[in-house]
Amino acid sequence: MNLATIVQKYGGTSVGTIDKIKAVAKKVIERKKEGNDIVVVVSAMGKTTDKLIDMAKQISDNPNKREMDMLISTGEQVTIALLSMVFQENGYDSVSLTGFQAGIKTGGVHTKNRIFDIEIQNVENHLKAGKIVVVAGFQGINENGDITTLGRGGSDTTAVALAAKLNCTCEIYTDVDGIYGVDPRVWPNAKKLDYISYEEMMEMASLGAGVMETRAVEIGCKYKIPIYVASTHGNQKGTYIKEYDETMEEKVITGLSISDDVLMVTVNNVPYNSKNISIIFDKLAKHHVNIDMISQTAPFNGYINVSFTASKEDVNTINEVQKELKAEIQGIKVSKESDITKLSVVGIGMMKQSGVAASIFTIFAENDIEFKQVTTSEISISYTLDSKDKQKAVTVLAQKLNL
Amino acid sequence: MNLATIVQKYGGTSVGTIDKIKAVAKKVIERKKEGNDIVVVVSAMGKTTDKLIDMAKQISDNPNKREMDMLISTGEQVTIALLSMVFQENGYDSVSLTGFQAGIKTGGVHTKNRIFDIEIQNVENHLKAGKIVVVAGFQGINENGDITTLGRGGSDTTAVALAAKLNCTCEIYTDVDGIYGVDPRVWPNAKKLDYISYEEMMEMASLGAGVMETRAVEIGCKYKIPIYVASTHGNQKGTYIKEYDETMEEKVITGLSISDDVLMVTVNNVPYNSKNISIIFDKLAKHHVNIDMISQTAPFNGYINVSFTASKEDVNTINEVQKELKAEIQGIKVSKESDITKLSVVGIGMMKQSGVAASIFTIFAENDIEFKQVTTSEISISYTLDSKDKQKAVTVLAQKLNL
Repeated sequence: MNLATIVQKYGGTSVGTIDKIKAVAKKVIERKKEGNDIVVVVSAMGKTTDKLIDMAKQISDNPNKREMDMLISTGEQVTIALLSMVFQENGYDSVSLTGFQAGIKTGGVHTKNRIFDIEIQNVENHLKAGKIVVVAGFQGINENGDITTLGRGGSDTTAVALAAKLNCTCEIYTDVDGIYGVDPRVWPNAKKLDYISYEEMMEMASLGAGVMETRAVEIGCKYKIPIYVASTHGNQKGTYIKEYDETMEEKVITGLSISDDVLMVTVNNVPYNSKNISIIFDKLAKHHVNIDMISQTAPFNGYINVSFTASKEDVNTINEVQKELKAEIQGIKVSKESDITKLSVVGIGMMKQSGVAASIFTIFAENDIEFKQVTTSEISISYTLDSKDKQKAVTVLAQKLNL
Repeated sequence: MNLATIVQKYGGTSVGTIDKIKAVAKKVIERKKEGNDIVVVVSAMGKTTDKLIDMAKQISDNPNKREMDMLISTGEQVTIALLSMVFQENGYDSVSLTGFQAGIKTGGVHTKNRIFDIEIQNVENHLKAGKIVVVAGFQGINENGDITTLGRGGSDTTAVALAAKLNCTCEIYTDVDGIYGVDPRVWPNAKKLDYISYEEMMEMASLGAGVMETRAVEIGCKYKIPIYVASTHGNQKGTYIKEYDETMEEKVITGLSISDDVLMVTVNNVPYNSKNISIIFDKLAKHHVNIDMISQTAPFNGYINVSFTASKEDVNTINEVQKELKAEIQGIKVSKESDITKLSVVGIGMMKQSGVAASIFTIFAENDIEFKQVTTSEISISYTLDSKDKQKAVTVLAQKLNL
């Protein structure tokens, strides 16, 4: 590990105005003065990406995705140029690099690409020349030479992937001051964690904790890159995401993650036949819909019902899939619910301790909270419930589990 | 010449809103339906470039130029993505290409780069696949892999250079409906020309006629690419810029070009010595200041005075040069005037006919118009005068010369 190299990432809110960009530069320069080589990864300024998407929506409900990537990748390009200008105005040599210039090679489908490699030479050469290297997050280039974007949380992924290639620490600066056991907007007494293991953070992230995307944590985990999450403003201590070890506090439950981005789809009246279930999920996969929780009832009178959850942003795609399915499987009925919240309790300690599910069912029962679906992993249990019950459920769980 | 391929260029005003982009797409599609292969070159939407420059100016009076290119090149990238989306929404296959993706290789200094080659293969392949190819004007990539921009009128240059590589006609759509003998904003009775030779247009452009940049016309001239300039709106006949031939109307004076972007710099008290003059213009060249008119008085008492004009946008650079010169040549005095207008009368017929200069001096004398400098080329005569005399001078010249 080369301790003299640091990758820092600042999100859209942190670079939302020229003054904020200047404040970020000041923070970076402090670390540069200490003798570190610094790569800064930034997102688009404030609401820029949303504004670009709005323009596209004036053209099409479903704009061409290659062109969406071409369009929205301009947001980060503006930020890197401005931030690099600030460094140079302050007498620090600096260079800005777009995704393709930073060697970020991606694959997959447009608007949801994945980094498959980084040709790090260009970044390294600029670092060796003493420059502060400013890299556009969220974007790359594919094998056809098309500009690509990485989807939600893409800038985090860019930062952690660069840190993995440079074998250094990654610092994620954001508008929250660390990782909390529960989202403090929902449970104001929530406690900030000093450490969280990669595994727990991945569960939290994939379950909707919002601070960091799963993919970024996955890369950190794979390459054992410590990720430090802290506030852009002030010097309050943040949270380290790192390997699980004995120095971490021994807790059964580390956190409770909450997601309102849940579309619950139920397909009723499916003739019982394993081929039909496979058709449903095959079609969803072909349309690149990420499925989260799946539950299926036992067959009754030769029919089964199946429910699954997905992100609300895939609703248009799911509507298309629905049409195709109705044509292929006679008589099925599809319904969608969007006032759904998913709650997940996460803790690496659950692996060693039984009865966690039971105690949570008891908490729900004692408080008259009904849930629709349950799924479990080795280190988490997730529930979907009506959004109206969200606040009550979070409050009782956070209190009982001491989060 | 492959008549089935056309390069069209639409400027910033023509693509200023989503509705305008849709109108441009409609115009392009009409030509596509006729069976043509089409490359569309576009500028940034409306005032986008100005807004980006304003952001940079909040950071520095003299922002790093590599980063300026990185910043402002995003403007065209937004337009190409949106326009390509409109084609696809209307059922036409299309692809957008940034400068580097279109193979536009540049050299020179940042913010004022020049195209030195186009690797046209990618554009050709997409055309062969039946796509409408949308290319970002004004930008390219240099030998270091840095994003570059071409300076003022760069999108015209991109369009004509692409047409030269594809050996086809270039159509420039703009907010004026063709080339006029005199700027109609200054002389409302101005006449639109059906044809103008490359040479005349280059003089007009370099002298500030504003419709098209010299460089674009130069490339057209070199590769004998007909350039058609017409209005984005409606179907009024525009003006062809092409080789001079007998079908063109035989006129001595084709046009009068007017430029207010004139900074007149006078250096007084220069010790008479050819080395000193060379020092002055060497330094200006090294700082990439484009010099236009130069006039020098005969030596008097061992000293000479020299005046030259430049673009107002170079004022900061000229201030720097001024400091260096004062340190190097003792005792010189530098003054600058910016309320200056340059008028140039242009006509390929002047080569064959003498006395044009004399008749214009007479017109000025009869109307009490004083001028500060005169320079001549084979097909033009240029004058600088106080801006307060501009309207009067244009009116009398346009009337007397029947423009």
